[in-house]
Amino acid sequence: MPTQFDPPSGTRDFLAADWETRENAFARIRSVFARYGFEPLVTPAFERLDVLLGKYGDDGDKLIFKILRRGEHEGTGEADLALRYDHTVPLARVAAAYGSQLPTPYKRYAIGPVWRADRPGRGRYREFTQCDLDTLGTTSVMADAEVICAVHDVLAELGLSGFQFLLNSRRVLAGLLEAFGVPDELGPGVLITLDKLDKLAPGEVIAELTGRGLPEAQAASLVGALTAGDAVEQISDALKGSDEGAAGLDEVDALLSVVGGQVPGDRVVFAPRLVRGLSYYTGPIWEVAAAGGAGSLAGGGRYDHLIEQLGGPDVPATGGSLGMERILLLLPQEGTGHTRLDVAVTIMDELHAPRSFAFAAAARDAGLRASVYLGSSGKLGRQLKWASDTGARWALIYGNAEEEAAAVTVRDMTSGEQTAVPLSGLSDYLADLAARPAG
Amino acid sequence: MPTQFDPPSGTRDFLAADWETRENAFARIRSVFARYGFEPLVTPAFERLDVLLGKYGDDGDKLIFKILRRGEHEGTGEADLALRYDHTVPLARVAAAYGSQLPTPYKRYAIGPVWRADRPGRGRYREFTQCDLDTLGTTSVMADAEVICAVHDVLAELGLSGFQFLLNSRRVLAGLLEAFGVPDELGPGVLITLDKLDKLAPGEVIAELTGRGLPEAQAASLVGALTAGDAVEQISDALKGSDEGAAGLDEVDALLSVVGGQVPGDRVVFAPRLVRGLSYYTGPIWEVAAAGGAGSLAGGGRYDHLIEQLGGPDVPATGGSLGMERILLLLPQEGTGHTRLDVAVTIMDELHAPRSFAFAAAARDAGLRASVYLGSSGKLGRQLKWASDTGARWALIYGNAEEEAAAVTVRDMTSGEQTAVPLSGLSDYLADLAARPAG
Repeated sequence: MPTQFDPPSGTRDFLAADWETRENAFARIRSVFARYGFEPLVTPAFERLDVLLGKYGDDGDKLIFKILRRGEHEGTGEADLALRYDHTVPLARVAAAYGSQLPTPYKRYAIGPVWRADRPGRGRYREFTQCDLDTLGTTSVMADAEVICAVHDVLAELGLSGFQFLLNSRRVLAGLLEAFGVPDELGPGVLITLDKLDKLAPGEVIAELTGRGLPEAQAASLVGALTAGDAVEQISDALKGSDEGAAGLDEVDALLSVVGGQVPGDRVVFAPRLVRGLSYYTGPIWEVAAAGGAGSLAGGGRYDHLIEQLGGPDVPATGGSLGMERILLLLPQEGTGHTRLDVAVTIMDELHAPRSFAFAAAARDAGLRASVYLGSSGKLGRQLKWASDTGARWALIYGNAEEEAAAVTVRDMTSGEQTAVPLSGLSDYLADLAARPAG
Repeated sequence: MPTQFDPPSGTRDFLAADWETRENAFARIRSVFARYGFEPLVTPAFERLDVLLGKYGDDGDKLIFKILRRGEHEGTGEADLALRYDHTVPLARVAAAYGSQLPTPYKRYAIGPVWRADRPGRGRYREFTQCDLDTLGTTSVMADAEVICAVHDVLAELGLSGFQFLLNSRRVLAGLLEAFGVPDELGPGVLITLDKLDKLAPGEVIAELTGRGLPEAQAASLVGALTAGDAVEQISDALKGSDEGAAGLDEVDALLSVVGGQVPGDRVVFAPRLVRGLSYYTGPIWEVAAAGGAGSLAGGGRYDHLIEQLGGPDVPATGGSLGMERILLLLPQEGTGHTRLDVAVTIMDELHAPRSFAFAAAARDAGLRASVYLGSSGKLGRQLKWASDTGARWALIYGNAEEEAAAVTVRDMTSGEQTAVPLSGLSDYLADLAARPAG
């Protein structure tokens, strides 16, 4: 397509077939969330600039699309509004604004576009759908379990398989640092490095840890424990010496026992190496690894102070986010299923047009998608070509011959078979067609 | 709510109940459009600024939310993108971009937010949903008829009544000016004044027409014909002397005959006074008047050159737009129907939590909305209060007594009646509950 008609860089136009695939997925997701008692929340596309700025540091601020002031203020070149960057900052604002009107706990989901001025690339867009679910106002580990199970059910409902939930707790990580004698001031940096264990060789991670100031023997024993064949046992043993670590292990055990009862046994595992980059997590954290190491499909955790940091009330919270654009790419292809019509109605001449229009209406009354021919050709061949292009299963033909016989010719577009249906019986006939399974 | 937590001026947060009302309406509308063979089209929230600017004159440009350039260019205070103002300019861009990939004719609908920096007021928002359907690529009056019938079916499907389609044609108006001897150069101004016949007295309209340079006798005879009790007959007679007027009348007659066959007789009338302000219409025009003169619910018409003027290819087009925010206000209230759960499951202590969680999962498997209690109270009364707050129809209670009896207590939240259901029979029992009609 010529450049000047492209959608803006990093955005997409969704024509019918693509949109329907997405909407089907979203409808299934909404249905799973609703079964868990999560409610929809829809906030405006833009927020006041001060609501968005400074919430995710300078790097976050750079990705914000800012909206210019209007009217006499346009010339200042200043912005006062900005497109939402995620669904979490608006959630914090809503929690502050509607406080007591919201149920306690407040379980909400948000599915909708967010905008980030990132460099566009394969699978990375500037307008993309983010799909979040969060529970505010409870510290219960059952809330974490609900989020994890809902995300599991969504992935299963969408037809994905082979994925695995990796489960950990920030308290396990804190206990780990304590158990291996990592000085407090090195803790955050050590976690950032440990997060690379999936990408770097153990030796490289040890080198980076020593570079951060951790004595080599400590670094080696920490990395050794985390990468051992029996890492879970080694780590669990080590954690028993730390209050925080023991509490973290209890959290993980509680989650495994509740979630493990609901999902197939191998789909959720304790992963003591899982760090997740975001510093705001405070309790359980989890990530869904796609089959074959194709990256992460979803992730989340408990973030008991973030809502307050984002400008909301001081409420505990836990939640998760689905990587929708990646998930949509993995969905089983539903074939070439997209058609525009079930019934295509010819218009042989102006005189018969009102009748043809009424036949299309009768087909719609029967629940079928139907339209009359809107082109200028009076030739049956051209009109049947159009009918075929729409993917219609049947064509209704009505001209002089049919008028004389007080009948409509119904053509099966697959077999080419034609049936003369008396006008008086057309509604029943259409109802029968509507009841036939597709394909 | 404190001002600083408000959504930005002219925008709204939609909590669950409000959103569900809207979504139900949109789902019904999409279903009607699909039955007519209209396809969804979803374009990005923003377009390149040059795509949007200058399309609806200076007044239009003033209402555009512009997005500041990013990174090193932010300091220039210049904009390069802007939020979409309507669905028609993006449609023109899409028609240019995907030309031959689109079906002919291209019948599409668009339901989604648009943004205008208008002064917010009662029922007037800066972010609001626009709902358009348009057919590109055909001059057939059947395409106009389809749009009108689809809009009619939407309004009927939404439960509205008492509305009326006012039907006219720009060619009727052109013929009218010709028949009453209005000089060409006065034509556009005269139409603008005639558009006020609903608000001003005939004498005031005549005065304004003479102010525009029309001789008083002509102005009086024009206004007299349009406001007469038998206006339709008088105008029809007058038009017969004009080729353009006769062609317009034929158009209106064809529409009345096709549409009139599908909708109740009094719901569509010829309204020779209908002008509709927008100068881009070229053929049939129509408007839906709400019951009791509460304004217009929808409007549209044929605009055979607009797509080209907006930067698209030179294709004929016809379409319509539903005033969704106004329509949503008129919808029959569905009662206080919003509930969050069907089944609320107590958690009496940590020991019983996994079991309770499994009961909630079983209820979801039966298709019910279910959640466990996420609060910190171990008291049954508090937990039943929560169950009641969620609107749940049933509570499931499982504690020591139930464990000993290998049963679950199912409490009917309306009657307070309690039933002990053996664990082995719980799935079947929940399936029975799921099959019971609500309320």
